Amino acid sequence: MTEQLIEWLGRYGADADGGVTRLLYTRSWKEAQEALAEKMKSLGLEPAFDDAGNLFGRLQGTDADSECILTGSHVDTVQRGGKYDGAYGIVAGIAALARLREKYGAPKKTIEVVAFCEEEGSRFPYNYWGSTFLTGAAGYKDVEHARDQQGISFMEAMKAAGFGPGSRGRGARTDIGAFIELHIEQGAILEQEGQTIGIVEQIVGLQRYTVRVKGEANHAGTTPMPYRRDAMRAAGEMVAAVMDGADEIGAPLVATVGRMELIPGTPNVIPGEVLFTMDVRHPDGAKLEEACAHFVGLLHEVASRRNVDIETERWMNTAPIAMDAELTDAIERICRSRDLPYRRMPSGAGHDAQILAACCRTAMAFVPSRKGISHSPLEYTEPEHLEAGVQVLTDLLHQLAY
Amino acid sequence: MTEQLIEWLGRYGADADGGVTRLLYTRSWKEAQEALAEKMKSLGLEPAFDDAGNLFGRLQGTDADSECILTGSHVDTVQRGGKYDGAYGIVAGIAALARLREKYGAPKKTIEVVAFCEEEGSRFPYNYWGSTFLTGAAGYKDVEHARDQQGISFMEAMKAAGFGPGSRGRGARTDIGAFIELHIEQGAILEQEGQTIGIVEQIVGLQRYTVRVKGEANHAGTTPMPYRRDAMRAAGEMVAAVMDGADEIGAPLVATVGRMELIPGTPNVIPGEVLFTMDVRHPDGAKLEEACAHFVGLLHEVASRRNVDIETERWMNTAPIAMDAELTDAIERICRSRDLPYRRMPSGAGHDAQILAACCRTAMAFVPSRKGISHSPLEYTEPEHLEAGVQVLTDLLHQLAY
Repeated sequence: MTEQLIEWLGRYGADADGGVTRLLYTRSWKEAQEALAEKMKSLGLEPAFDDAGNLFGRLQGTDADSECILTGSHVDTVQRGGKYDGAYGIVAGIAALARLREKYGAPKKTIEVVAFCEEEGSRFPYNYWGSTFLTGAAGYKDVEHARDQQGISFMEAMKAAGFGPGSRGRGARTDIGAFIELHIEQGAILEQEGQTIGIVEQIVGLQRYTVRVKGEANHAGTTPMPYRRDAMRAAGEMVAAVMDGADEIGAPLVATVGRMELIPGTPNVIPGEVLFTMDVRHPDGAKLEEACAHFVGLLHEVASRRNVDIETERWMNTAPIAMDAELTDAIERICRSRDLPYRRMPSGAGHDAQILAACCRTAMAFVPSRKGISHSPLEYTEPEHLEAGVQVLTDLLHQLAY
Repeated sequence: MTEQLIEWLGRYGADADGGVTRLLYTRSWKEAQEALAEKMKSLGLEPAFDDAGNLFGRLQGTDADSECILTGSHVDTVQRGGKYDGAYGIVAGIAALARLREKYGAPKKTIEVVAFCEEEGSRFPYNYWGSTFLTGAAGYKDVEHARDQQGISFMEAMKAAGFGPGSRGRGARTDIGAFIELHIEQGAILEQEGQTIGIVEQIVGLQRYTVRVKGEANHAGTTPMPYRRDAMRAAGEMVAAVMDGADEIGAPLVATVGRMELIPGTPNVIPGEVLFTMDVRHPDGAKLEEACAHFVGLLHEVASRRNVDIETERWMNTAPIAMDAELTDAIERICRSRDLPYRRMPSGAGHDAQILAACCRTAMAFVPSRKGISHSPLEYTEPEHLEAGVQVLTDLLHQLAY
């Protein structure tokens, strides 16, 4: 059933090449959310949108005052993304709730599956709108100045899609007692180790820097090598030094230089200035801090050796987020009892689970991504792995809600 | 006089910050050429444009059948350039011819000063239009497909400025017997060694490559270091390897990576592809060839070590051009007799002289550039150095034409 639901949902916003583009509040996004609401209804779940456009499918518990057990993920995708990222967590939740209802009837505690309106930050420069709206960590004031690349404001786009202040009479919630998110791994560790389930222990901390290297722009033909203050030569050595440093520290630390700009950036001028980003992640906050300080030291060493100036600016600093230990143990016991190969691991990517973790017991599980690919039309997860994830989720929800 | 002429010419196309922008066939360019024609006339030189917009100021020789001795440089500048690059060679020629006429009257051989219409390639993707038109090395068919950044075609722009096929009835010439170009050094060697005149022995050969490094784009958070095929890491090591290699080979070899592009170029994605340019120059053709082969080898070594693919494309390959030995010796004798500190040196930059050298005896001399700066509002040469260059030129023209 899960595989069919993935294919079905992937038709909303389908690109010609097999990929999917569902940007927040666009037509394909709206059609997907409305189709999901219909699907929920047809499977006996009561659908409802909140004011931000998050969609919930409710399986009412018999204990009216109980906390709500929530599962799900985000419905939006990156530009030219795949069918699995986000979508899997939603359809797995729908499948699990449908099975529980069919097999056991109404639960004691209410269970809901959520299709968060947004997580990727692909249309507007804002991430986690769905989950931060739900928990109250963010509100309209946080997005009202954001505009997409066409200049459309966040609030206009929300309103045009039929959402926004007062539209559904549903805002932030305080009744969520637990959140479970299933997601594709977006890495290749499970595939390479032959595991079926990744049990997330923590979501990594992340620091992101802009490094500005200032040398002296000069004529590429008339400036002898010893007289140069070549910002690109220094930047090249800096990248090499940081990468070697990351290798030395070893897993689970990762470091990436993903963007670089040369000024003036013409073939016949020695670059006077180079800017680049440095993204560093580690699941242990103290080790992350230590690694970043080490890397900044390496950058300064190269700058001094190459006689260039350097400025580093840290513009992102997210602490690692631990998942709930009891829920994590519960998932491990389920994997054992179902004889599913699993491993505990950090998540190197950010997820809605890290937002929910600030408010309720939160757990997260991964299924393998073929070749580790994500944010691409080539995303793929084997049907038996999709099914294994749903089994684990169903068992856990049963334990928590019945 | 030369200093005043530099300041005067610098007013045509003057930028607010003291720089100059005179792009080919623009209004400031046209005004400068027309003002130069007037200036030539007022100093007893007979001005004439050719069909491309090159301006010649003629001091008629008494021997009607003699070859013409030509001096001068280009009137166009880069975007936000300075007052000296190109302009100095023109105003020095005007000053020298005015002095010769005043002191010695009509020469035996005709002498002309030229303000080449274009050398920098700053408006259209085409260099040396003025000198290649003059020698017949290029014609309209070579530029007719070129467009500027506003989409204006080369031919349209030429016509709008009053030039183009048949406009002046003057095309390529075959009567040029010698060409002498004065130019600012655009490097800091003369300044650092305390020399006044640089006698150019050859204009360096140049090879320019685009290097394409192909790895695998992947998520910056979820891809462990050992599983990465990071094109940026490889590119950083490549830049470092080529620069170290250039240091080992030593002067006069220079190597520059001036442009680099990362794909996709976002902070949270490991670059799957990096493109960069490599510009390598040496005054000895065999040594240039050897150095480039060595560098390409270094690039492949890094690619192999980092498990990325690499393609190198050589898109420019200009052989070194020797200046005329007799004229060069003559300049040296003049420097000695006038007690001007001088050195022989290669030119690391390209100049109109390299085009003329294919057709006639050609020589070139440099005066110092403060801090080696060129293509900048900060270009500056001391008045006594400007004057020394004019003295050398005047003496040489006298020897050749009287």
